[in-house]
Amino acid sequence: MTPTHDIQTLGFDVFGTVVDWRKSIARQAEPFLKKHKIELDPFTFADEWRSLYQPSMEKIRSGERHWVPLNVLNRESLDEVLKGHGVDIDSIPDAELLALNKAWDHLEPWPDAREGLIRLKRRYPIVTISNGHVSGMMALARYAGLPWDAILGAEIARNYKPQPQVYLASAKLAGVRPQQLAMVAAHNDDLVAARSNGLITVFIRRPFEWGTGQNRDLAPEEEWDVLAESLVDLADILNCPK
Amino acid sequence: MTPTHDIQTLGFDVFGTVVDWRKSIARQAEPFLKKHKIELDPFTFADEWRSLYQPSMEKIRSGERHWVPLNVLNRESLDEVLKGHGVDIDSIPDAELLALNKAWDHLEPWPDAREGLIRLKRRYPIVTISNGHVSGMMALARYAGLPWDAILGAEIARNYKPQPQVYLASAKLAGVRPQQLAMVAAHNDDLVAARSNGLITVFIRRPFEWGTGQNRDLAPEEEWDVLAESLVDLADILNCPK
Repeated sequence: MTPTHDIQTLGFDVFGTVVDWRKSIARQAEPFLKKHKIELDPFTFADEWRSLYQPSMEKIRSGERHWVPLNVLNRESLDEVLKGHGVDIDSIPDAELLALNKAWDHLEPWPDAREGLIRLKRRYPIVTISNGHVSGMMALARYAGLPWDAILGAEIARNYKPQPQVYLASAKLAGVRPQQLAMVAAHNDDLVAARSNGLITVFIRRPFEWGTGQNRDLAPEEEWDVLAESLVDLADILNCPK
Repeated sequence: MTPTHDIQTLGFDVFGTVVDWRKSIARQAEPFLKKHKIELDPFTFADEWRSLYQPSMEKIRSGERHWVPLNVLNRESLDEVLKGHGVDIDSIPDAELLALNKAWDHLEPWPDAREGLIRLKRRYPIVTISNGHVSGMMALARYAGLPWDAILGAEIARNYKPQPQVYLASAKLAGVRPQQLAMVAAHNDDLVAARSNGLITVFIRRPFEWGTGQNRDLAPEEEWDVLAESLVDLADILNCPK
């Protein structure tokens, strides 16, 4: 980090960077898959559901589809995964599918996340810049004990990262210039977009987001302004009091 | 409160309901007024500044003016108050006026507010539905220790209360129907608008918002769904654990 950087606010990617969606989705899906005799490993199920995440947002980014929040996209993707495995989803009570879709509101934080955020918040405002919808981010924060100062990101901007307006609207609402907002993420593509919009970039290494066989985002692919091994490590780097 | 009410989320007015703007503004203005030899009682100054609040928002509500956030309106009102007392504001460094305008980010909570919010948050998501801008609400929450789950309200809706979209956009982002969102406010006009948009209404009695001579909002002017003497009293009424 060069001394010219003037971080005023920290903005966080959430899924993968702050919380471990894969293990949490697998854990919550397991009883559902058993009950409905769907022969699918819960981790494979989590990976398949998540793999539809980017394509589902792409229609909105491209303008092909009007804005809908992430809970709508997640539900469509859930139905698609189940159908792909021959499940007759009309035979499953809608309340069960709704409940499973809410699994995204109940994700475990990475072991360092809560302590790291508490320390970072002592020095900086901490906000979400996630593709998650506001009410889901609120529910997740309550579940996982994440002490956000504000929920910003996709729904506020009515578009999805990496579209510029998500970063720029978040900076504006946080009351800072893009050059004063640090994007904290475990994904290189998020930081590429953040940097191209003027933000400071912080890469958190999360080598097990996709399990032990992860083959993406294992290392920084550009010279990001800050590189940290965890949110506690970031708190150390930024001199946030214990 | 009738048993048919199904509160899912609590939305709060902030200025006057949660924080004591008058005493806090007077305290912060006093050294400024002294330094610039402006012969004005700090409480009178606070009252005059605040009295321009409603008229300044009215141009935006009416559509005469495009959206600007509250810090812009507050600054214009500050200049107007000072000019009204013969102050040559061009003779005052802009940084001093900017700093005084930020007094709205540093307001003391009413003595019951923090404890009440902490208890209410144990049972309900608590969000702001204030006319304050997002970054000001964030700064105020950090200053006063207000543990909001999310900052919603005017800037998210790009209009000011009591315009319907402020209540409705806040409900939508909070993921609840208006009938599941309780508006908590010390001002009857706020609750009139909230009710007309379907929200549950909670009146908090704040008889000293305008000092000992207060002549407005001393009592509920309609049969609001809940009437409480403080936020701790509200936590008791709603059975929120200590």
